[in-house]
Amino acid sequence: MAARFGNRLVTSQAVREQHGHTTTWLANQPPDAVVMAQETVDIQDVVRICGPLGVPVIAFGTGTSLEGQVNAPAGGVCIDLRDMNNILAVHPEDLDCVIQPGVTRKALNEYIRDQGLFFPIDPGADASLGGMASTRASGTNAVRYGTIRENVLALKVVRGDGEIITTGTRAKKSSAGYDLTHLFIGAEGTLGIISELTIKLRGIPETIAAAACSFTSVEGACKATIMAIQTGIPVARIELLNQAQVRASNAYSKLSLPETPLLLLEFHGSEGEVAAQSELFGEIARECGGGSFEWTTRPEERTRLWQARHDAYWAVRGLRPGGGIVATDVCVPISRLADCVVETEEDLIRLGLLSPIVGHVGDGNFHCSLLADTDNPDEMARAEEFMHRLVERAQGMGGTCTGEHGVGQGKQKYLLGELGPEALDAMRAVKQALDPHNIFNPGKIVPAA
Amino acid sequence: MAARFGNRLVTSQAVREQHGHTTTWLANQPPDAVVMAQETVDIQDVVRICGPLGVPVIAFGTGTSLEGQVNAPAGGVCIDLRDMNNILAVHPEDLDCVIQPGVTRKALNEYIRDQGLFFPIDPGADASLGGMASTRASGTNAVRYGTIRENVLALKVVRGDGEIITTGTRAKKSSAGYDLTHLFIGAEGTLGIISELTIKLRGIPETIAAAACSFTSVEGACKATIMAIQTGIPVARIELLNQAQVRASNAYSKLSLPETPLLLLEFHGSEGEVAAQSELFGEIARECGGGSFEWTTRPEERTRLWQARHDAYWAVRGLRPGGGIVATDVCVPISRLADCVVETEEDLIRLGLLSPIVGHVGDGNFHCSLLADTDNPDEMARAEEFMHRLVERAQGMGGTCTGEHGVGQGKQKYLLGELGPEALDAMRAVKQALDPHNIFNPGKIVPAA
Repeated sequence: MAARFGNRLVTSQAVREQHGHTTTWLANQPPDAVVMAQETVDIQDVVRICGPLGVPVIAFGTGTSLEGQVNAPAGGVCIDLRDMNNILAVHPEDLDCVIQPGVTRKALNEYIRDQGLFFPIDPGADASLGGMASTRASGTNAVRYGTIRENVLALKVVRGDGEIITTGTRAKKSSAGYDLTHLFIGAEGTLGIISELTIKLRGIPETIAAAACSFTSVEGACKATIMAIQTGIPVARIELLNQAQVRASNAYSKLSLPETPLLLLEFHGSEGEVAAQSELFGEIARECGGGSFEWTTRPEERTRLWQARHDAYWAVRGLRPGGGIVATDVCVPISRLADCVVETEEDLIRLGLLSPIVGHVGDGNFHCSLLADTDNPDEMARAEEFMHRLVERAQGMGGTCTGEHGVGQGKQKYLLGELGPEALDAMRAVKQALDPHNIFNPGKIVPAA
Repeated sequence: MAARFGNRLVTSQAVREQHGHTTTWLANQPPDAVVMAQETVDIQDVVRICGPLGVPVIAFGTGTSLEGQVNAPAGGVCIDLRDMNNILAVHPEDLDCVIQPGVTRKALNEYIRDQGLFFPIDPGADASLGGMASTRASGTNAVRYGTIRENVLALKVVRGDGEIITTGTRAKKSSAGYDLTHLFIGAEGTLGIISELTIKLRGIPETIAAAACSFTSVEGACKATIMAIQTGIPVARIELLNQAQVRASNAYSKLSLPETPLLLLEFHGSEGEVAAQSELFGEIARECGGGSFEWTTRPEERTRLWQARHDAYWAVRGLRPGGGIVATDVCVPISRLADCVVETEEDLIRLGLLSPIVGHVGDGNFHCSLLADTDNPDEMARAEEFMHRLVERAQGMGGTCTGEHGVGQGKQKYLLGELGPEALDAMRAVKQALDPHNIFNPGKIVPAA
């Protein structure tokens, strides 16, 4: 390995620990070594060297995953893909492009902006596209543009013997055999390593409008969201901030928002379209007990309206400086969202925990930003109890333990309750079929039988 | 089997042949018996009886598949699911519903219309939803609403031992493990039998506009389509009829359309939105050399504008009464569509074959309606050559041999050229993992190694 990769094989403790980064309470489990890949053949060679030895291989993009996806519980070699960041081709007429897995969404959007194009998936972090595909990421504008799942046309994936699987073509749709593309999306690198992606792009909208509306209750905000979607308003983003989040944001960002649940929206389209959409949503908001409704297409005003959302993470950190935050990730049918958020708020009070809530409410997905002191066993026990109850609540409402963060290590224990033993059997069979020696990111997604 | 199913087990030759129906030149290969299923336990019991005996099990919806998907090359038991046609739950607030696999798209739309809802996937035939999911179907309005792939939230699937796999929840998005839902979509019943679907619905648009525009060339029509999509006009349908199809339609439907390529469009939205979209497309069409552009929201006028498309199949039949038609199904990146259609038209002339063309041009997917006399070996040889060359042309342009009809028996020989041996290895491994005794619809999709 050292002979093949020279100083691109790194074994220093600092670098290894950085590559086992988890953004959670999960313990850091660093790999034994990190290889800085520069081209596809580097991935192939790592796999060819590690495979026969049974050494685990773990793909690493930007390390922004939230469930321990890049941890190395059995050691092994981490392949850092950040230098595989070339945009190989852009096809403006077809609204697609071909990229290496280390390209980040911001770098991509920077690169294609001059052609009037953008890539719509925005998970918050400036994640790599390979990582986003592997985690089945989404974010604030999935309500209009779908998740990464709906925006990948084809992948190239390095398999266990180092050969490359091509999963599809640049055709916008296909019925040509099993859907390998979607099998690798969300597989968190456990079935192979993504070495190339063909993804869909969009034309930058002519006009973007931002809007904000306070509601007296979470129910009112959710009802307005449901009506907007039923009516067919193509909202580009629709975000809920609960009372605790608005309060934190007022304090941090020096705002003077009413301390009640807040909906922030974005509309994309022609000037006439966004005006019509904004006005129509304003009417719906009024019907649902919304307070004053503001909307604007001016960039600086849009930033001001969305300030509370942009600063949400820092506002939460400001509540307990130096403390850790763990993000939960349940997603429920939208008709149950208000119930789920309200019951969750009650549970937080009951357990004496602090956790503002933001939600991609158009999709029924919301995140608690749970503050807890890892050195305080009592508080940690209550936090654990809270998270378990939250997942059970969401699953009981027909929802999922993870809308967009993935399973990694943190959510494995919830899959059985969500899908049942037969689905887990199927997942294990697929894993065994495509990675018989269990070298790809072992210990993730599917719990041991 | 007879003891379990009584007169719901049918072995008459007529019924068996009907269940091996192919709508192609592929020979009819009837199953040994047909079981009329009424509930999920019927599917489970057929599988439980057949599995240990190694008897093939083939799911049957409406028999409208086009590539021999329901043929029984190794005999076996066909499970006819038409009586499993219950709509189990409709959730208007969540825009989803839970149905049995035998529900057809027309029956579903009839049922939910009063609630202001519709299911957007329209493959032409009144197919069953289980069949549409299994074939990864789409149709004319996939350009706006996606294919069936983007419109299924979760499935229940009977596996080889008769137990049921649940692939997902009603949450609109999820990152909870391998994407089993999309693995079964497009698997053509080769990995298990779909016994229940949870699918997405939409609100019926306030206004529907139809539009038509003739172009002097296929290039002009394709260029207008590309510009419309780049501009972000959310066209609901955009269909190309080539010169030969327009000519056939004029003759059959007594129309007087200019005998040049024709684009037919549909716009969905509020009254203002569809007006704005129609006008904007009209401008684009003019820029691209389009002739007179007509649009209307009046139902009877919409029907008149789209007459040529509605009657397209019958118009083709009228060209050679009593003859057979075989539909091809390539899909290419939209930038290559004009080249692909024009070269295909030239090839038809060169080979002396008759085949009008209609295309879901927004997706780059088009169908030749190839007329050939199965009793004429010379003509059949030219037809075979044409189809091979068409698929190679599309694949050479970055496209696929099948945009929406699936692989079945007819397209197996093209998968290797499209995806390479590694993808086929992966498909075989998945098949082996989930159906180790090869009882589910054997001989379909993945060619023998």
